[in-house]
Amino acid sequence: MTSESTAPATASQLDVFEDLRRRVDARLESVLTESESDASRRAKDAVDTVVQVRDLTMRGGKRLRPAMLLAAVECVVEWKTLAAAVVDTSCGIELLQTYLLIHDDWMDGDAVRRGGPTVHVSLAKRYNDDHLGASAAILAGDFASALAQDMALSPSVPKARLFDVARAFITMQREVVLGQTLDVLNSSDLEAIHDLKTGSYTVRGPIALGHALAGGSPEQWSALEAFANPLGVAFQLRDDLIGAFGDEKETGKSAASDLRQAKMSAPVRWALERLPEAKKSELRSVLGTDQYVRAQELLIESGAPEGVERRIDELEAKALAALESPALRREGARLLARLAALMCKRKK
Amino acid sequence: MTSESTAPATASQLDVFEDLRRRVDARLESVLTESESDASRRAKDAVDTVVQVRDLTMRGGKRLRPAMLLAAVECVVEWKTLAAAVVDTSCGIELLQTYLLIHDDWMDGDAVRRGGPTVHVSLAKRYNDDHLGASAAILAGDFASALAQDMALSPSVPKARLFDVARAFITMQREVVLGQTLDVLNSSDLEAIHDLKTGSYTVRGPIALGHALAGGSPEQWSALEAFANPLGVAFQLRDDLIGAFGDEKETGKSAASDLRQAKMSAPVRWALERLPEAKKSELRSVLGTDQYVRAQELLIESGAPEGVERRIDELEAKALAALESPALRREGARLLARLAALMCKRKK
Repeated sequence: MTSESTAPATASQLDVFEDLRRRVDARLESVLTESESDASRRAKDAVDTVVQVRDLTMRGGKRLRPAMLLAAVECVVEWKTLAAAVVDTSCGIELLQTYLLIHDDWMDGDAVRRGGPTVHVSLAKRYNDDHLGASAAILAGDFASALAQDMALSPSVPKARLFDVARAFITMQREVVLGQTLDVLNSSDLEAIHDLKTGSYTVRGPIALGHALAGGSPEQWSALEAFANPLGVAFQLRDDLIGAFGDEKETGKSAASDLRQAKMSAPVRWALERLPEAKKSELRSVLGTDQYVRAQELLIESGAPEGVERRIDELEAKALAALESPALRREGARLLARLAALMCKRKK
Repeated sequence: MTSESTAPATASQLDVFEDLRRRVDARLESVLTESESDASRRAKDAVDTVVQVRDLTMRGGKRLRPAMLLAAVECVVEWKTLAAAVVDTSCGIELLQTYLLIHDDWMDGDAVRRGGPTVHVSLAKRYNDDHLGASAAILAGDFASALAQDMALSPSVPKARLFDVARAFITMQREVVLGQTLDVLNSSDLEAIHDLKTGSYTVRGPIALGHALAGGSPEQWSALEAFANPLGVAFQLRDDLIGAFGDEKETGKSAASDLRQAKMSAPVRWALERLPEAKKSELRSVLGTDQYVRAQELLIESGAPEGVERRIDELEAKALAALESPALRREGARLLARLAALMCKRKK
């Protein structure tokens, strides 16, 4: 088995992800409906925030992180032997993302997320008060965080593995919060942001959870980590390109939001390192304003899109090479390779 | 043993709490110092938020919740047999409180906490920007939340009890977040706020954690819950009196903050139910303004302080009666009785 090549997944393997997506959506729907009824009974006036958690969570379509978790489990054992736990911990990751997105969107002042209004915007409108809307949004995030823990540490997780699953879930949170702090403070330490923010909770975190859930070995972890780290950076670079050039209709996020917020993203840094002095100054002066079209022109002139694309390709190749490790089951490695391709080429 | 009366704790039992406080403080100091070094290495620009978490946590002197947890453990087994886990889960509760306080203080616009500036105020000053300060404060809270989970589910917790400890810890969070949401939205459902907000994470939550950690029986839980619920309400009523009449120097919080925020607290509700129409209108008009001295006069005129005090006494008596249960070890019941007295009589 271990000598098979890491070829792209076949149609039946893609169905694994579609199957998982449906199971995760159904489970999330059921858990969030239950939370809503519970809040209606015990804290009626707080039910709006639970409804917001539900709406935002159910609008998240891709469920890439659950797919990553499942593929990591499949690198160790057949995921079907742990199906209920894979679905529950996947819901934990999705709810963790809901929590982080709600808080991030308020911090960044974003109005649109997943093709709908952000939670703080909805609630500010609902209560006709910006601070109250923001406060209720932060609490909606905090509620999603508690629910995320509930699902990640659910009764379906084998008791003997609960400790390791908890560690993986907590590590992911510590890292992503530090990464988001760097991001909000506009730190120039891009590598740390990439590693801690997106890398951690998009790739390494879900994979670490899958590995813990499946009871994987240290050798398997070494191979999985060597896959996860470059892929996490590649994912963030793709995010940076989308944040600079993506349009709202396609991404479900505000257009060119990173440029309007003057984020030190990878394409911006590329341009600032390569443009001649006058254009560098011009770029600096249009960042953080509404003149994002001019900022985009300057990035293109600097060759940033191609430069960042090349770096993404290199990182993807590095991630794929790690999957050749004989420690990993081929079935899982193939699924991870397919996900790497999806993540590096996505448009939203 | 079970026929012994529930007399106040002796001097040597008080030393148990003092001993615990020292151990919890030392462990918190060590964990937070480690987190700070870790952040310095991996996310240098985010270290301020970790320092804020540390400062606020270390300024919390009473450690009443850890004492409650220890006493609940002692109702089931000798706490010394689980000393490391009692200290670690106690740190988890204290860090949970740090998380909740940081978020609450920003929502309530409070400037003072535990005798120092609140985190959002410190960070706004540090970054010379209110929104950035608030964002970094929310993230400081989120970081404390992750750290709280790390300590509550630490390696010292017996593996066979980790699942129950996790459930207790998560339930507490779900409840307190719903309670805080009601509070922020100024819900008129005071009972739900008392039960979910303060009751849950001050009394019932720590006791549930202690019970789970010690592997207690359902009978022991029934008795502990019958103690916790009335005491939780009594604690909240005391909080409401302090929030209306306490002064900043003694409480470490802004003076009369509940009156200035027009909170529907127990003394306010008492007065609104009993004052004659004209004074009722006057009270309504001064609530939420700087005229809190007049609001205090009106509350006193209505008999609110004595009325609420009487209710606290009744609730304390009810809580103490539950401790007579033969299911509980007398050593633990005595500690809980002592804590009930401390909580009902405190001035801050």
